Amino acid sequence: MTNPQAPQTCDLLIEAGFVVPVEPHGVVLEDHAVAVDGGVILAVLPIAEARARYAPKETVSRPDAALIPGLVNAHTHNPMTLLRGVADDLPLKVWLQQHIWPIEAAVISPAFVEDGVTLAIAELLRGGVTCVNENYFFPDVQAATYRRHGFRARIGLPVIDFPTAWAKSDDEYFDKAGEVHDQWRGDPLVATAFAPHAPYTVNDANFERVRMLADQLDLPVHLHLHETAQEVAQSIDEHGQRPIARLDRLGLINDRLIAVHMTQLTEAEIHLCAERGVSVVHCPESNLKLASGFCPACALARAGVTLAIGTDGVASNNDLDMFGETRTAAILAKTVADDAAALDAFAALRAATLGGAKAIGFDHIVGTIEAGKQADLACVDLSALETQPLHHVVSQLVYATGRHQVGDVWIAGRHKLRERVLVDMDAAGIVANARQWRERIAAVRTS
Amino acid sequence: MTNPQAPQTCDLLIEAGFVVPVEPHGVVLEDHAVAVDGGVILAVLPIAEARARYAPKETVSRPDAALIPGLVNAHTHNPMTLLRGVADDLPLKVWLQQHIWPIEAAVISPAFVEDGVTLAIAELLRGGVTCVNENYFFPDVQAATYRRHGFRARIGLPVIDFPTAWAKSDDEYFDKAGEVHDQWRGDPLVATAFAPHAPYTVNDANFERVRMLADQLDLPVHLHLHETAQEVAQSIDEHGQRPIARLDRLGLINDRLIAVHMTQLTEAEIHLCAERGVSVVHCPESNLKLASGFCPACALARAGVTLAIGTDGVASNNDLDMFGETRTAAILAKTVADDAAALDAFAALRAATLGGAKAIGFDHIVGTIEAGKQADLACVDLSALETQPLHHVVSQLVYATGRHQVGDVWIAGRHKLRERVLVDMDAAGIVANARQWRERIAAVRTS
Repeated sequence: MTNPQAPQTCDLLIEAGFVVPVEPHGVVLEDHAVAVDGGVILAVLPIAEARARYAPKETVSRPDAALIPGLVNAHTHNPMTLLRGVADDLPLKVWLQQHIWPIEAAVISPAFVEDGVTLAIAELLRGGVTCVNENYFFPDVQAATYRRHGFRARIGLPVIDFPTAWAKSDDEYFDKAGEVHDQWRGDPLVATAFAPHAPYTVNDANFERVRMLADQLDLPVHLHLHETAQEVAQSIDEHGQRPIARLDRLGLINDRLIAVHMTQLTEAEIHLCAERGVSVVHCPESNLKLASGFCPACALARAGVTLAIGTDGVASNNDLDMFGETRTAAILAKTVADDAAALDAFAALRAATLGGAKAIGFDHIVGTIEAGKQADLACVDLSALETQPLHHVVSQLVYATGRHQVGDVWIAGRHKLRERVLVDMDAAGIVANARQWRERIAAVRTS
Repeated sequence: MTNPQAPQTCDLLIEAGFVVPVEPHGVVLEDHAVAVDGGVILAVLPIAEARARYAPKETVSRPDAALIPGLVNAHTHNPMTLLRGVADDLPLKVWLQQHIWPIEAAVISPAFVEDGVTLAIAELLRGGVTCVNENYFFPDVQAATYRRHGFRARIGLPVIDFPTAWAKSDDEYFDKAGEVHDQWRGDPLVATAFAPHAPYTVNDANFERVRMLADQLDLPVHLHLHETAQEVAQSIDEHGQRPIARLDRLGLINDRLIAVHMTQLTEAEIHLCAERGVSVVHCPESNLKLASGFCPACALARAGVTLAIGTDGVASNNDLDMFGETRTAAILAKTVADDAAALDAFAALRAATLGGAKAIGFDHIVGTIEAGKQADLACVDLSALETQPLHHVVSQLVYATGRHQVGDVWIAGRHKLRERVLVDMDAAGIVANARQWRERIAAVRTS
């Protein structure tokens, strides 16, 4: 028997003015602490009690801050961070065909992917994000880069009907997908998903192959879906069905599906998604900037669909700011639903944390601050002028906080950002490297 | 004759990696300097040339930053900054009648106005804003507070059909308006405007009195207009006309009018506004959060209407972040116009600077970086990870920059923010005071 008086050793005790655990829903715990050991949350309890119960190797005290689950960015193309602002304010076709694709064709390489992901990780950590759902070429390089930086990620295994720098044929896409999946199976931080690009770039046979393999390997399917009205019209032209109906015919409308964008939805489609357990990743700023349309976020959430939030790629957004994205999701939902009570602050924060974790199948390990989960945490300073007076903690977090107010971030209990400083990344080197990419990309554009 | 070789003395030379003057439109000047003397911009010229031509008393060198005109927040209720997040996610009527109005009734006073405006000024300066168009009670206290802090403001003189803490009768509203106007006439920083509250709170007689006095005193008229569908429907019920038609009958649809919100507009109304020289202040985040609707910002701008941007009050927004607001305006305009090229980055920055200055009748003195104008300037660091690589300066400013990247701000040549530090304001004292207001307001709410 252990002595009830003897404090228990643990790696870390984080004491915060406020803890917002997300689960239970709608709760703000004042003057609470989170005890962490071996990367895992041991307990969430009042500070005084925590001091009596634990003998931590390290105590981090943040009386003016709110501790929240690390944010989950549920849709990214992080290598494209190197293309931030390279082309904006253009119709989608011109943007892709005259700018993004020619640049990518000239610069895409393992080095581009590694450097883009590294820049993205630094930006994400400085903004309280601890996990991404990634979607780009060279998933092998991505996985290694996230792992090296101790960052949690679900890595998409791309499938697309035409040859790219990553693979030249259908078989090569699937073979390489299998290899990357094999290599990272069982990793504590990095997992994989199938990432067929979109309904208009993947044929029926490839979708069926994705479905079969995803079932066999028990993987999610990460897919751009119903992003634009044009996509829906084109599908009706080519397949005689809207994309969701076509995917249903192919057996993909199920609880493996992570459906990204979803700006064009009928009532029946919303209810089908709810029934089948489809998760939806809402990327409001990308949808607005590319004039794609409005995702009915509130209607989806009210129907029972798991709602997650993603920034989309930096080439179209142009940042990885999940505070800004969550805020946009929360305010846009109200006008789209014609209801000022739609997607309230607690619901929006939930979508940005637990919603993302659920969508990508990580909710058993992250997404809330609960005993037994991984210690993926962000500590947000609320003492700044910009978040005073502090009438309501979660309102401030969602509606008034800038991501620069994130002071500390942990992933699996490892301190990744300490008082705004990246613990084990060379920020100056990353900026210098981004500047070199700027020159290389400028050279491509003028050549 | 002056010796062409002898450098000219001046107060200040600001050297920046980039100067974005806004006028001429679409221009980014690399490695340029702005010379300032007596609060006025003398010249905008290449750094090397500036060093040869001027002998400044002070040189500020910011090679990694962009110097832009100070942002103009064209619609605020800054005393309400003390109500940040006090009630959110509620239908407008519940929000006003059960939360905001009871709290205001209990706490509104000259001290509330002074302290709210002071907190707002600190927040605005830290976000690159140098000028506001203000709309609240106790304009006398507001004017004195802005003036004391050397902040530029157009102060609304409230007119509303019911008694408030500021005035008890129609005559008292107009008498006090005249007094406040008289007191500040000719001030270099603070001017006034009439601010009849809204079509549903001001009767025809009071609107006619506003029109007559605004003509006599040569003042703008700052008005919430066509904010919601309900406002339009109510006007048709009560007056048999939409609010714009009613105001046209009353002689107010003209180039004095600063029309705020404007989410409900017909084609004909857009063209009427363009013809008559009405300015529109777009408050996209407030409109979204209160589920008011979408202002057709791009259609207005394309019709030739002067488009300005405002945050609205912090009780409904919940911040005074003009970087965020401008970004939201730029991305939302694209989906509303169904055109990804709508309100491009240069046009959005123009709306947030020169557009605001024009709307409130300050464009002869501020809104661009041009010789002869007041030196109201903001310097924005672009070296952070979050704005790298730097492919396009104005894209980064509009789509990727956080307001915390504002390093320096000047108003009329006076340094107000220096490397993120408020020069002549006590930030800690302001936060401490906000915390006291939090306790007072909490006491009201539970009493």
